[in-house]
Amino acid sequence: MSEISTKPPSGMRDFLAPDVARRRHVLSVVQRVYESFGFQPLETPTIENLSTLLGKYGPEGDQLLYRILHRRERLQRALATGTPTELDLSDEGLRYDLTVPLARVVANYRDLPSFYKRYQIQPVWRADRPAKGRFREFYQCDVDITGTTSVIADAEVMGAVASVLKQLGFAEFSILVNHRELLRAFVTAAGIEAEHEAPALIALDKLDKIGRDGVLQELAQKGFGDGRGEELLRGLEQAREPGALARMASEDGPFQKPAQSLQELMAVAKDGPAGAHAVFDPTLARGLSYYTGPIFEISCQGLSGSMGGGGRYDNLIGMFQKKPVPAVGFSLGLERVLLVMEERGMFPPLGIGPQVLLCRMGDVPADAAIRFASQMRSQGLRVEIYADSANMGKMLTYANTIGAPFAAILGASELAQGTLAMKCLKSGEQAAVPVADAAVFVSKRS
Amino acid sequence: MSEISTKPPSGMRDFLAPDVARRRHVLSVVQRVYESFGFQPLETPTIENLSTLLGKYGPEGDQLLYRILHRRERLQRALATGTPTELDLSDEGLRYDLTVPLARVVANYRDLPSFYKRYQIQPVWRADRPAKGRFREFYQCDVDITGTTSVIADAEVMGAVASVLKQLGFAEFSILVNHRELLRAFVTAAGIEAEHEAPALIALDKLDKIGRDGVLQELAQKGFGDGRGEELLRGLEQAREPGALARMASEDGPFQKPAQSLQELMAVAKDGPAGAHAVFDPTLARGLSYYTGPIFEISCQGLSGSMGGGGRYDNLIGMFQKKPVPAVGFSLGLERVLLVMEERGMFPPLGIGPQVLLCRMGDVPADAAIRFASQMRSQGLRVEIYADSANMGKMLTYANTIGAPFAAILGASELAQGTLAMKCLKSGEQAAVPVADAAVFVSKRS
Repeated sequence: MSEISTKPPSGMRDFLAPDVARRRHVLSVVQRVYESFGFQPLETPTIENLSTLLGKYGPEGDQLLYRILHRRERLQRALATGTPTELDLSDEGLRYDLTVPLARVVANYRDLPSFYKRYQIQPVWRADRPAKGRFREFYQCDVDITGTTSVIADAEVMGAVASVLKQLGFAEFSILVNHRELLRAFVTAAGIEAEHEAPALIALDKLDKIGRDGVLQELAQKGFGDGRGEELLRGLEQAREPGALARMASEDGPFQKPAQSLQELMAVAKDGPAGAHAVFDPTLARGLSYYTGPIFEISCQGLSGSMGGGGRYDNLIGMFQKKPVPAVGFSLGLERVLLVMEERGMFPPLGIGPQVLLCRMGDVPADAAIRFASQMRSQGLRVEIYADSANMGKMLTYANTIGAPFAAILGASELAQGTLAMKCLKSGEQAAVPVADAAVFVSKRS
Repeated sequence: MSEISTKPPSGMRDFLAPDVARRRHVLSVVQRVYESFGFQPLETPTIENLSTLLGKYGPEGDQLLYRILHRRERLQRALATGTPTELDLSDEGLRYDLTVPLARVVANYRDLPSFYKRYQIQPVWRADRPAKGRFREFYQCDVDITGTTSVIADAEVMGAVASVLKQLGFAEFSILVNHRELLRAFVTAAGIEAEHEAPALIALDKLDKIGRDGVLQELAQKGFGDGRGEELLRGLEQAREPGALARMASEDGPFQKPAQSLQELMAVAKDGPAGAHAVFDPTLARGLSYYTGPIFEISCQGLSGSMGGGGRYDNLIGMFQKKPVPAVGFSLGLERVLLVMEERGMFPPLGIGPQVLLCRMGDVPADAAIRFASQMRSQGLRVEIYADSANMGKMLTYANTIGAPFAAILGASELAQGTLAMKCLKSGEQAAVPVADAAVFVSKRS
């Protein structure tokens, strides 16, 4: 009789049947489209060694990791030191994204195809401050191609994600595209040293959240208030103007190579599903530290924040093995996609729950209800038996509560004749139906 | 480059594509059958408050919980005390089973149907010693019915699990059935006090793992070596003899009511899917402390341990709210099912991976490959583009590596004519096929 809280922990959610149905609808489209692009499924454990996770996401990421507390003797030993650190108390943590586990997998299984195209749809955990559309447990839907630096691979991951969005019913969305090397050239041109690039990009990454002034303020806090922050932003904004990418690609200098690389990517992708949606955005930064080449982010009008992002990361796998392996990937965020689809009513009708409630009258033994239900189920129907004894009115009310469109009434006379009194709850129509014909009755009226 | 371990943590596994395909095959049957019984899906968070989890699984269970280490200020405060306990360092843990989260959900959402029939297919975590078929992260597939003490509910959860096993191809399996009250009567009859019932049952639960002598030894360690352990085992073994259940049901005394209850359950279930598989086993104990009535366990010849179990637990939900709610459930363990199916070769062919490898010749631009692949994908084909530039032999070898049964060769002449040179890799047949007919070519030869 205690007063234990019955809510899920902060930032986490229970999904009841209608939620699960919506989530499955989206995930089934994601899965089908990703497989149509030749990606193969991978699942990795929820728990990873901290040695796998730490140092891959930058210091802000490391802060947000969920860590597993040691147990029994190891915990006792850690506590006995008197001054245990976080690393004394834990050497495992929860999956933070799907990219680092992929890198570990590529390093671990040496007989994977030379181009390993995998998709992965699993939850990740980040101890971030919960907000609208931001949870501490959330699903990512990733596609990645390892083992090639080909621009086709970059275009294919963009195409896969664009196809998913289109098949879900999204028409207006952009895939913002930028290049880490281009950003680096702008950072350098603004007089910011290479070793301060990361904090500058983390500030820049917040542009759509905190605005221009917010970014300038954060750049100032990081020591670039001497005009260099303003210089960086101005340079990037000028690069947004029409023709700027072509100009950079044609001029000798540090901007040329990444600009040409982006031009090539746009050209290769142009006739594919991503073609009409790809937009060069020189201010796109992406927070994660492991990107090395093109970077992507999905932008959808009316949604602050992004439905997904990705990029090329040619050095990450080399952190797990001697031989570096190039890679590119794109991650779709399930929760943001659902949020927009719910707000815009983009779901088709999703039939879940029982189709038939079997109503057993008081004069029928329980084993007969089980027998009749089994027969209906073997016809492919979803059937619930009203478990208690109750009068007809109560049972029919319950059928409505659970959303069952049909009731199958089983009394002594039906039992004797091998029939059911099938009732369509919407029309009120009722008919004696041989139990073997129950599914036909239902399908004709559904 | 560092020497980080690239293996998953102890007791955890990566699932590559063939593993995922086998797991999905089983889970799709589970889902379809559970839905045919009228169960609706539920998903709960990976992380639960420790106040939800602790004290539900017995002391051995509490020991095996994965706990989340506090972060930042809360961790610093706990460490600053100088003598932090486990509870100072953590107030969240990983899901240990699916039953306790269900109980929390029933208490939290007051507008659920009065009989809440839910299924839940999710991983759980236990810091147990890994062994064959025993992992630290593993999937459970649960069905439960809350809100009724009806024997129909007990028979339905048994029937749902039996149907799953049959549809997966299992013919020979037993659902062992016992009753907690019957066990209690035997414990009392052996002279063991009510407050020592739990340790006695935990010892008894290991009968199939450690054998009769092992159980007697453990009972002796727990203080019942004075003949009471032997007395308990002898009583239970006598109850295994034919006719014993009927005799207990007919004789006044503490055995009568639970024996009658089991007789009724067997009678109600007899014409359903579980009927032919239900077997009374008075030595069945089930380790978890929350069961109150009938208990179940699946036994499969040649498999030590069980593929699943369950029972009635009428008091658990009352630990989360004032009003007690009766409930019964059955949990199928995915990993054990997979283990047996793999050993016995029970899987149908599971088609995954790309059907077609698009081989772009050196004289074809990359954007054309994207365009042709898009057209094939829109026909429903799973298509991978060979990302790099390579000679034909290398590309065809790669097609075999990834198991693609067809290659679609795109050279300058095919590009000009809007065709593909479609090659069936098994037969060697090759034909010029308009790109719009690629799926027809493949389906005729698959």
